[in-house]
Amino acid sequence: MAHDAVQLIKHKRDGGALDDDQIRWLIRAYTAGEVAEEQMSAMAMAIFFNGLDAAELATWTTAMIETGERLDFSSLSRPTADKHSTGGVGDKITLPLAPLVAACGVAVPQLSGRGLGHTGGTLDKLESVPGWRADLSTAEMITQLEDVGAVVCAAGSGLAPADKKLYALRDVTATVESIPLIASSIMSKKIAEGTGALVLDVKVGTGAFMTSVEDARTLARTMVGLGTDAGVRTVALLTDMSTPLGRTAGNALEVRESVEVLAGGGPSDVVELTLALAREMVAAAGRDEVDPADALADGRAMDVWRRMVRAQGGDPDAPLPTARHTHTVPAPADGVVTRVDAMAVGLAAWRLGAGRARKEDPVQAGAGVELHAQLGERVRAGDPLLTLHTDDEHRVERALEVLAAGVEVGEEAPAPRTVVLERIAS
Amino acid sequence: MAHDAVQLIKHKRDGGALDDDQIRWLIRAYTAGEVAEEQMSAMAMAIFFNGLDAAELATWTTAMIETGERLDFSSLSRPTADKHSTGGVGDKITLPLAPLVAACGVAVPQLSGRGLGHTGGTLDKLESVPGWRADLSTAEMITQLEDVGAVVCAAGSGLAPADKKLYALRDVTATVESIPLIASSIMSKKIAEGTGALVLDVKVGTGAFMTSVEDARTLARTMVGLGTDAGVRTVALLTDMSTPLGRTAGNALEVRESVEVLAGGGPSDVVELTLALAREMVAAAGRDEVDPADALADGRAMDVWRRMVRAQGGDPDAPLPTARHTHTVPAPADGVVTRVDAMAVGLAAWRLGAGRARKEDPVQAGAGVELHAQLGERVRAGDPLLTLHTDDEHRVERALEVLAAGVEVGEEAPAPRTVVLERIAS
Repeated sequence: MAHDAVQLIKHKRDGGALDDDQIRWLIRAYTAGEVAEEQMSAMAMAIFFNGLDAAELATWTTAMIETGERLDFSSLSRPTADKHSTGGVGDKITLPLAPLVAACGVAVPQLSGRGLGHTGGTLDKLESVPGWRADLSTAEMITQLEDVGAVVCAAGSGLAPADKKLYALRDVTATVESIPLIASSIMSKKIAEGTGALVLDVKVGTGAFMTSVEDARTLARTMVGLGTDAGVRTVALLTDMSTPLGRTAGNALEVRESVEVLAGGGPSDVVELTLALAREMVAAAGRDEVDPADALADGRAMDVWRRMVRAQGGDPDAPLPTARHTHTVPAPADGVVTRVDAMAVGLAAWRLGAGRARKEDPVQAGAGVELHAQLGERVRAGDPLLTLHTDDEHRVERALEVLAAGVEVGEEAPAPRTVVLERIAS
Repeated sequence: MAHDAVQLIKHKRDGGALDDDQIRWLIRAYTAGEVAEEQMSAMAMAIFFNGLDAAELATWTTAMIETGERLDFSSLSRPTADKHSTGGVGDKITLPLAPLVAACGVAVPQLSGRGLGHTGGTLDKLESVPGWRADLSTAEMITQLEDVGAVVCAAGSGLAPADKKLYALRDVTATVESIPLIASSIMSKKIAEGTGALVLDVKVGTGAFMTSVEDARTLARTMVGLGTDAGVRTVALLTDMSTPLGRTAGNALEVRESVEVLAGGGPSDVVELTLALAREMVAAAGRDEVDPADALADGRAMDVWRRMVRAQGGDPDAPLPTARHTHTVPAPADGVVTRVDAMAVGLAAWRLGAGRARKEDPVQAGAGVELHAQLGERVRAGDPLLTLHTDDEHRVERALEVLAAGVEVGEEAPAPRTVVLERIAS
């Protein structure tokens, strides 16, 4: 039946719960343009304050899925597992992870996005590989999953179009920061995508959307509940994002670092998180007997990476783009790196040209921040501490401003970093 | 300077206060279409939850006034006083009040509105007088104020256009019920109107917007503060709206009853409230020495009424329109009227055709509810209890439905009604 949008907003505003029929009508009518943007933004703000209970949230998510198509991977000869990260600085994990999991016999249909603000986007990173393209048809995607085992591509507009519309609205109305709205946005796309298993990498810390462990835990539990109820085997890891992952933040810089990991090297935190997520994905897909560390060590993951890049038009052997200008900051004193703030590095990379402020802005493939020493590593006065990369030399100054307070060298070594903070399963 | 609407919404959402510059920018940019409707609705919902403090509210109100023109009555030979009612059932008070106050030597520039929902509008009532027109130019208005002393007309679109736009938005986004937004909406128009004194009739009860005395008191205090700060001598009365004012709810029916009051008769509650408000207006305008009761008793108020109606094209001697159908409900038993619910009578009058659901709907001049006995009056079984008036006989049934539970005859007389509950001055 038809409802009155004003009455539904009022009900939610006054602390009431919306029933199934009301939620389904609202999402359908909003997607069809019958509920106005200004009404949905008022509803989103009311939800920001009053939340959605478990039943409302499940219906809200399902209703968003039902506005679009659902992919079906049941024809594949192997199980599927996907990963979603809530976004962090230097988070290139998808790049080594997808081929690594595929090398373990699990298909990885990774629908990714572009970066906005201080966090980079997986598609932006891969697009720094010469020739690589993000847009695949569903048929191409399924063929690649069968042939290569891993695909990283842009989500088509057909999945949960309600979410696409609602996300754009939330972005301009300060209603992004609502746990039920975040959870339903992520999970509606992932459930519609048709993956059999899903591992969520929920970031916590200064460079993450969630800065407190409590909020991150609530979000993780909410998403695990939604996935499980929808028949997707879902696990979440809470992982540290107080300092960047690895030694680079920037598109081509992170591809280079990812290839190092696939080659058996790379920063230990990136390796650790890649393996932790790979184990969860492989286990959730029912392949507990396989150890991803073997597939990384013996080069099978690298083989899949090369085939994956090639299948999408990229040349894995082509030199990666580099920025026109570099600016190296030396360590001010002998000592140990006591602070590398994730948000500061993310903002610096953004200011150097690696990120965008608006969806339609271009990004620089070569721009970013390179850390010569990570948190807790020793440095000597005058040695390179970090290098800034950019095509526009005038951007260096504003990046340095934000880094000045974000990177510190001191005398006392900080507590060792824990990458994986918590595991949350249903 | 320019601000970012999203940051301002976030700041208010998170409990912060907006500064003068931010509020002025927001209201200006919204009025100019640079801040989108969906952003302002999110802001309005954030204000619903987090409020506006006294400084924010004063700036918000001033900023809305500054988007439009301000009237100036300083050329008039007498002081001005206006009245605003927050809306009730059977609230025809403006009709006898404006000429009565004018008869006391105070000019009354009464910019009024039309009815929406269960409460009627003063302009709709006056338009049932044959020939009367609501639209006057500012020049016509000032001439009439000088010549007749009272004018009741439609507010031009030039006063506080930001409020007009914001009110329409709040109406469809369930953000009407916010005390600071209500207060700034009312006061921006009244201050822009340029009256020297203002008396607020804040209704409390089932038929009013504010159903609790606490909320009504808060709203009244807020508005009195805004008016006083803007240099307008402002007083508020909290008045009862649990049962209708007088014996009629409907356009021509209320005009008839108002003329009875001006002729020295009429229901005692209407007379009491008219005199109470008139005394406040006359005193606020500095004419404490005049007693409005004299001007009512000696026919001067009636003279001004007739000149006021004539000045706006109306014929005060023409018969008022009557509805095509009437339906009389007899008292079910001997007894006393123990309950006449204001909301029930308001809804019944609306359903009979006296009110409108949307701004563009027409209203029936003759439609409405006539109470043959008010709350606390004795009735005998079979005597007429109430009469429904409508041009469309099919409307009677739905009006009776809502009246069934709203009007009761019992044995025990209810506590006597107090019309004026509280007086609030700065």
